[in-house]
Amino acid sequence: MILLLGGSGYVGSAFRDLLARGGVEHRSVSRRECDYTRVEPLAALIRDAKATFLINAAGYTGKPNVDACERDKAACLAGNAVLPGVIREACERTSLPWGHVSSGCIYTGARDDGGGFTEDDPPNFSFRTDNCSFYSGTKALGEECLAGARDVFLWRLRIPFDHVDSPRNYLSKLQRYRRLLDARNSISHLGEFVAAAWACWERRVPFGTYNVTNTGSVTTREVVALIRQRLLPDHAFDFFESEEEFLRIAAQTPRSNCVMDNSKLRATGVPISEVHDAVERALAAWRSA
Amino acid sequence: MILLLGGSGYVGSAFRDLLARGGVEHRSVSRRECDYTRVEPLAALIRDAKATFLINAAGYTGKPNVDACERDKAACLAGNAVLPGVIREACERTSLPWGHVSSGCIYTGARDDGGGFTEDDPPNFSFRTDNCSFYSGTKALGEECLAGARDVFLWRLRIPFDHVDSPRNYLSKLQRYRRLLDARNSISHLGEFVAAAWACWERRVPFGTYNVTNTGSVTTREVVALIRQRLLPDHAFDFFESEEEFLRIAAQTPRSNCVMDNSKLRATGVPISEVHDAVERALAAWRSA
Repeated sequence: MILLLGGSGYVGSAFRDLLARGGVEHRSVSRRECDYTRVEPLAALIRDAKATFLINAAGYTGKPNVDACERDKAACLAGNAVLPGVIREACERTSLPWGHVSSGCIYTGARDDGGGFTEDDPPNFSFRTDNCSFYSGTKALGEECLAGARDVFLWRLRIPFDHVDSPRNYLSKLQRYRRLLDARNSISHLGEFVAAAWACWERRVPFGTYNVTNTGSVTTREVVALIRQRLLPDHAFDFFESEEEFLRIAAQTPRSNCVMDNSKLRATGVPISEVHDAVERALAAWRSA
Repeated sequence: MILLLGGSGYVGSAFRDLLARGGVEHRSVSRRECDYTRVEPLAALIRDAKATFLINAAGYTGKPNVDACERDKAACLAGNAVLPGVIREACERTSLPWGHVSSGCIYTGARDDGGGFTEDDPPNFSFRTDNCSFYSGTKALGEECLAGARDVFLWRLRIPFDHVDSPRNYLSKLQRYRRLLDARNSISHLGEFVAAAWACWERRVPFGTYNVTNTGSVTTREVVALIRQRLLPDHAFDFFESEEEFLRIAAQTPRSNCVMDNSKLRATGVPISEVHDAVERALAAWRSA
């Protein structure tokens, strides 16, 4: 029995679909039925349900974007930093292995050698480096709350996208924003992300942190070129001249743009596709809302 | 009707005594009777109780000292950073003025000009400066969660002491530790702290942040000399040779030692005594456990 927290969210729904399609016995737990923000009720649920694994896809992302986190700091901290620690405690008390949806947004840029950040690189977009959004700060603190934990996967997601139009889908956002910021990012196809995360458990790869992003990186302009090619040949996309202009005009808080190295995940044999291929396939199968 | 959160703690008990002695109608709220870590139940309590002011003396300090916070990061974050944000939200919804027990431990050392830190100086012992204990990091985040809030006092306490022997009393700790670290600190007489905090509300001084420490600063050696003079003439106090030795041998995480400037508080007319005088009076009235 797999317990899923945050099953009604964008990422959680994809986990639910994956488990349902695979015929895996699971239960999506709402906070109404179990207050999983507390150790005791969550540990009791784990015992009662005879859970064999738990997936935490709950968190606070801010709607419509991370700027909202600046106005609701306590809820953001509770959802992204405290909750993982509470789940850790409940899972340690019940000896339950589990996986946590973390984020690559605790990095900015690329490594000094030009490569993507590996799991061994300390976050460089966090409270500790004092250059981050409140959202990124809380996600990095969430990883700190899991430091030294055994029997847990930290799956780092980055800018999810797939072929279904949605306010949370990166490919939808690019079509809807009035102006775009050109930046280089590693990003995660949502279906591939949840499949890879689940495969970590199914194949019993070693616990620990994994960058679960598609291989390589893309620039906003590259993705826009693919969108024009596949979906909107006549749409004029407008770009900010610089990150400075973007921050001045359109954003309250800095954004993480970063390149991730997924070779630790790939070395386990868990499949993940090249990022341009993944974007092209999503656009080829595009389903409007 | 004054609502008091954390009334069973070291600082909260002092508030309770002060209000009781002054004949002020108040209610010490336990988490059993009201889950004040949630906005809705707390806002409902505020309305039902027809509260006119709220005092938050609840927080997570770590027992026996801040090293414990390194092992319970989620609870520390929840108690020190999320809770103030939750109380803010409940008080804003109900238009209730309130006061929060914050801490001067978000600073280290003294200002470059040799003076104490004022309320305008940004914390220099926090996650943002990446040199702090987890405890201090969460207290600084708690202040961030209150940034821009109206109708709230942030009363910064530092190393509480008084005349009653107790594991939380600085003067007791100095007598019990096997070895001491010599450092210069501003510290707060507990009774004077709660009296000054309460006076802020009673006298309707402007809302905002106040360093509620006794005037001036003391070194550990100065306090030890006063203890020897008054209480333990024959006791041999042993000191670490350096902070490096202290951290290597006795501590898991760095301590805040700092000098605070309390002139903003004093300018309001709220009384607070000179620190050596306050220590001497406490030792003169010393009550063993």
